[in-house]
Amino acid sequence: MRWQTSEQIATIPMRVVGPIKIIGTEMNDEVSVPLATFETPLWPSTHRGAKATFEAGGIRALIIDDRMTRSILLESHSIIEAHETLINLQQHKEAMMALVAETSRFTRLIDLHIQLVGSLIFIRFEFTTGDASGHNMVTLASDYLLQWILKRFPELKYVSISGNFCTDKKVSAVNGILGRGKYVVAEVTLTKQHCRRFLKTTPEKIVALNIKKNLVGSIIAGSLRTANAHFANILLGIFLATGQDAANIIEASQGIVYAEVRDNHLYFSVTLPNLIVGTVGNGKTFDYVRENLKRMGCLEERATGENARRLAIIIASAVLCGELSLLAALTNPGELMESHMKLERQKNEGKSRD
Amino acid sequence: MRWQTSEQIATIPMRVVGPIKIIGTEMNDEVSVPLATFETPLWPSTHRGAKATFEAGGIRALIIDDRMTRSILLESHSIIEAHETLINLQQHKEAMMALVAETSRFTRLIDLHIQLVGSLIFIRFEFTTGDASGHNMVTLASDYLLQWILKRFPELKYVSISGNFCTDKKVSAVNGILGRGKYVVAEVTLTKQHCRRFLKTTPEKIVALNIKKNLVGSIIAGSLRTANAHFANILLGIFLATGQDAANIIEASQGIVYAEVRDNHLYFSVTLPNLIVGTVGNGKTFDYVRENLKRMGCLEERATGENARRLAIIIASAVLCGELSLLAALTNPGELMESHMKLERQKNEGKSRD
Amino acid sequence: MRWQTSEQIATIPMRVVGPIKIIGTEMNDEVSVPLATFETPLWPSTHRGAKATFEAGGIRALIIDDRMTRSILLESHSIIEAHETLINLQQHKEAMMALVAETSRFTRLIDLHIQLVGSLIFIRFEFTTGDASGHNMVTLASDYLLQWILKRFPELKYVSISGNFCTDKKVSAVNGILGRGKYVVAEVTLTKQHCRRFLKTTPEKIVALNIKKNLVGSIIAGSLRTANAHFANILLGIFLATGQDAANIIEASQGIVYAEVRDNHLYFSVTLPNLIVGTVGNGKTFDYVRENLKRMGCLEERATGENARRLAIIIASAVLCGELSLLAALTNPGELMESHMKLERQKNEGKSRD
Amino acid sequence: MRWQTSEQIATIPMRVVGPIKIIGTEMNDEVSVPLATFETPLWPSTHRGAKATFEAGGIRALIIDDRMTRSILLESHSIIEAHETLINLQQHKEAMMALVAETSRFTRLIDLHIQLVGSLIFIRFEFTTGDASGHNMVTLASDYLLQWILKRFPELKYVSISGNFCTDKKVSAVNGILGRGKYVVAEVTLTKQHCRRFLKTTPEKIVALNIKKNLVGSIIAGSLRTANAHFANILLGIFLATGQDAANIIEASQGIVYAEVRDNHLYFSVTLPNLIVGTVGNGKTFDYVRENLKRMGCLEERATGENARRLAIIIASAVLCGELSLLAALTNPGELMESHMKLERQKNEGKSRD
Repeated sequence: MRWQTSEQIATIPMRVVGPIKIIGTEMNDEVSVPLATFETPLWPSTHRGAKATFEAGGIRALIIDDRMTRSILLESHSIIEAHETLINLQQHKEAMMALVAETSRFTRLIDLHIQLVGSLIFIRFEFTTGDASGHNMVTLASDYLLQWILKRFPELKYVSISGNFCTDKKVSAVNGILGRGKYVVAEVTLTKQHCRRFLKTTPEKIVALNIKKNLVGSIIAGSLRTANAHFANILLGIFLATGQDAANIIEASQGIVYAEVRDNHLYFSVTLPNLIVGTVGNGKTFDYVRENLKRMGCLEERATGENARRLAIIIASAVLCGELSLLAALTNPGELMESHMKLERQKNEGKSRD
Repeated sequence: MRWQTSEQIATIPMRVVGPIKIIGTEMNDEVSVPLATFETPLWPSTHRGAKATFEAGGIRALIIDDRMTRSILLESHSIIEAHETLINLQQHKEAMMALVAETSRFTRLIDLHIQLVGSLIFIRFEFTTGDASGHNMVTLASDYLLQWILKRFPELKYVSISGNFCTDKKVSAVNGILGRGKYVVAEVTLTKQHCRRFLKTTPEKIVALNIKKNLVGSIIAGSLRTANAHFANILLGIFLATGQDAANIIEASQGIVYAEVRDNHLYFSVTLPNLIVGTVGNGKTFDYVRENLKRMGCLEERATGENARRLAIIIASAVLCGELSLLAALTNPGELMESHMKLERQKNEGKSRD
Repeated sequence: MRWQTSEQIATIPMRVVGPIKIIGTEMNDEVSVPLATFETPLWPSTHRGAKATFEAGGIRALIIDDRMTRSILLESHSIIEAHETLINLQQHKEAMMALVAETSRFTRLIDLHIQLVGSLIFIRFEFTTGDASGHNMVTLASDYLLQWILKRFPELKYVSISGNFCTDKKVSAVNGILGRGKYVVAEVTLTKQHCRRFLKTTPEKIVALNIKKNLVGSIIAGSLRTANAHFANILLGIFLATGQDAANIIEASQGIVYAEVRDNHLYFSVTLPNLIVGTVGNGKTFDYVRENLKRMGCLEERATGENARRLAIIIASAVLCGELSLLAALTNPGELMESHMKLERQKNEGKSRD
Repeated sequence: MRWQTSEQIATIPMRVVGPIKIIGTEMNDEVSVPLATFETPLWPSTHRGAKATFEAGGIRALIIDDRMTRSILLESHSIIEAHETLINLQQHKEAMMALVAETSRFTRLIDLHIQLVGSLIFIRFEFTTGDASGHNMVTLASDYLLQWILKRFPELKYVSISGNFCTDKKVSAVNGILGRGKYVVAEVTLTKQHCRRFLKTTPEKIVALNIKKNLVGSIIAGSLRTANAHFANILLGIFLATGQDAANIIEASQGIVYAEVRDNHLYFSVTLPNLIVGTVGNGKTFDYVRENLKRMGCLEERATGENARRLAIIIASAVLCGELSLLAALTNPGELMESHMKLERQKNEGKSRD
């Protein structure tokens, strides 16, 4: 048995949709967005949302929080010892911050949270990582911190450099509550006319559907901090097109749609508390990735971290477009019927579809 | 603003790892597995797991359950009316099964579950869909069923063809409990020697790490039906390489590692209750996809559904290899240190890494 | 160290509120409801809800499902063996049903669900238990079934008579999705006038508050199949007053409020999928309990199980009254302020309050 | 329809078990514990755990964190405005702390966490509340803070004094992650001999059962931050006996058992991150409550908050005793069989049991 040497490529169809008009406090621009996907109806659907929100004056979007985490896992002999460690570490936050700053150019420790389960010690380090998504940076920094702690408390035992309290690429509540990635909110207000003309629906219909399907439906599905129709589709499309680690759509898809009718207008928002994205690092060196990032204005000369923040705002805005468009379609049984009939015709004509 | 016309491609690096030896009741074969990923360390890591399990005699894997779902959402005037609908539908399961069988060649209704929330009616239809993952097939069949129900109960109102009780590409408990996709379990037994030689670890270390990190760590992270280290990475790699809808890694990553020491051996298993994959349909017509599926023996002449089942078994086995290898590495702080040092050297030499 | 012998009593203040008017298909009556609680404001608050719904014509309430569960946990040598067990058990459902019917007067096996995690076998038996809540009945029946299975599959090993897939007195998704206890829905329609006169609020305000607090607020709290303000308070009050095992408020509190404005009226519903209650058995022999059950008409000569069903319907209706009343109060900041001032005055006058 | 005036009492059987030997850093004492319950087998079972841990040298228990919360819910016109509010409030933490300190003798604001969902603003205030559990104290303080904020930001709208991000008496992840109530850990080490003599089991059996049932079983049940067998039973018993608001067992039951074999000994721990209890306030004025609290040494002259902390440590230790004893019984099928036979005999003799 020998290691397979030849490297090949998987090719995913990619198109650009938009432009999406974004009018937040951090960015104010019109940006076209690439989506790499096997689900080709995603392109016209997301594009429709872009058009509707463009005509409505644009999407307000901004970042509420920004951090990347890694939790190490240690073990002590007793809860007494574990508790002493906890107290001591909380008193030496600044020393650990200094340590991280010394050993890295871009990684900065900004906070830590500790949980004890019996004598197990889970320490969740929270960092900023500049324009990188930061997976490796936080592992490296956590490794230094781990060494430092083990030297300081020689009676503790190493269990794991990652204790799943991070938590990476797995559903959780902790990421939404303590933060992991960029916490982005995007919102738009559409008139009754915009809803009818561009989305063939009404504000009331969208709001009612969101309550019944996204809120109540997700609750009975036993979902967790998730209330949306298909954030995952748009996230996957952009993540692949921009060289992100697409396994992070798992956290990123744990987001919420909140909509209401305000003075006959539709207020529509998407909240994504866990968008882990970067503009440098792994996957960002491919030509098509750089071209895509460049087209979105995410490779400019800016203060550290600003390109990645811009990218996150654009992604959340695209998610809003895709979500709004699908919900609008779902309010309209005729529209779905029609697209189904098309599918069926294709099937009858021998084009296999799943 | 005009629709962007030119279609491009995103290219994801892809390599084949293995062969993985699988010795279940449904399949007994050695298969090499393609992984498309920006995270290149995934290749040697998963390959190491393949080698270790190969030498140990192979992975036992099989499918426990197999279904695809779509939940429609209707509304009635009162709980009284909603309850009558529920009773009536449960009495007419066979009529609905017949309806689906008439309108589709491969889709079969096998069960349904109904939940009422006030006067809202969530009906979760469960189907088999042959060798397709079945997203569109179940939507189409649900659409027919929806028409049939609305004709039968004209006082009900349509809310949505999808009510999030399905649930597609979103974290949930319902998919694991009632089933969505293929429920696959894969397991292997390794001797102490195999653990040492191929994974530089011991059965005891792997078992302890799994309990502390994957079980306890996931619980305190507020995870949901999830206890693993990085199922998502391997799933994403194979999903992209085989033309799957990779947004379904969200459900698929909700799986559990269970390990124990048995007579000094390591018993190691992965349970994936929600693997939504197919060998025909969307994304399966690309040359590299067909080549990959063919190499894995998933395009053979077989009974309907058998190719997709084989693919699911292979994927779960690859997940086992990747998970086992990472857990082994995590038990060994020195090993991680070393790989970090490599990363750092690369950084100092100007190769940026995130 | 010797066993402490003297038995004492804890005394909880108890008052009757109502009558609550219930107009479901299963029962149509006016019933006063006892609440035992240290939180004395619960009495006037729930009473207010009773009065408002009484004047509005009454509460429609009924039972959707009814079962009690226990999951046993076994272990096999491999997933192959575990899978064979699963197949075999599913084929012998009727034999197991017969076994249960032979060994008990009231316990009946109605379904079973099996989950495999590696070679672990979780078998969730689902029973009806007549008028008892059934904790002991299902344990006893599961014990017989366990013996029967171990005799049939001598290679399996016993792990536990309860494997937490039941699950008793612990938060879960499984109880809501597969059912445990009585699944009760109660709803009411109030005019704008009723809302104003009896609840000092409007339909619009109640609906908006429910969406923002109970639905969205619970989602961001990382709640699970739970969207209400204080089901637990009313449940605890009635459980203690009627001799129930009050630890079951944990499952019972996992319920959902759904409300909407319909033709200017308020449609308000509570859905409680997990109400585990009985009218016979442990705790039901105390004089005050029997008196309370009798006053509610739950000790009549009826078909087996009907008294317990009636009790469940009454409880859900009381939960509706308590929830509606609190939500109404919350829509009205002035009302809360006033009650706070009262609290403060009491505090200043030396009556300590927490 | 008139308000029912006569107040009655519900009487719950109560016995004292123990003494429990506690040897933490905060307290070092032997304490007998009252349990009010209809489930009379809880007494001998918990007592057995007390005896086993007493003989083993006692339980080490301490408090990791201590706070009580209330989240208010406000609304703004846009995410821009909501974000400005967030920034401003985070900058004025000290002003809010001062405000709370001025208006209350015992309530102190110690932290706050804000989440935005679209333009909704959830502000979770975290307080210390002395020896009270603090439900009303935090509501009152939050009300003052709410007034202060609305005066400062007149464009914001009041939604609710409680936004469910608190969250009170409802299952959640937020309470475990950000803290609500006292975070207590209790642990014990028993020799092989102690396990055999007092619990008729072995360290290995307890550890294996905890992994398979409490960890894996709870995960597949779709539980949330919960891994135990019956914390709720012991919690309910002590809460009723000490005048606590027993609806708070919902949060309190979300705790974790962690056990391992160490040098042939059993290391056994319970972690309860959400124990909301007090020694003054509502329900604490009843004679039997005061007597119980006094017997446990929780009405002494101590620094503010110390009596409530002592009570929390005692409760967690009792939970450990009850959990250990039940798990031990479950490892021993014969023991269960026997107790079942007793139940059956009682049934046959006409003593109805559920």
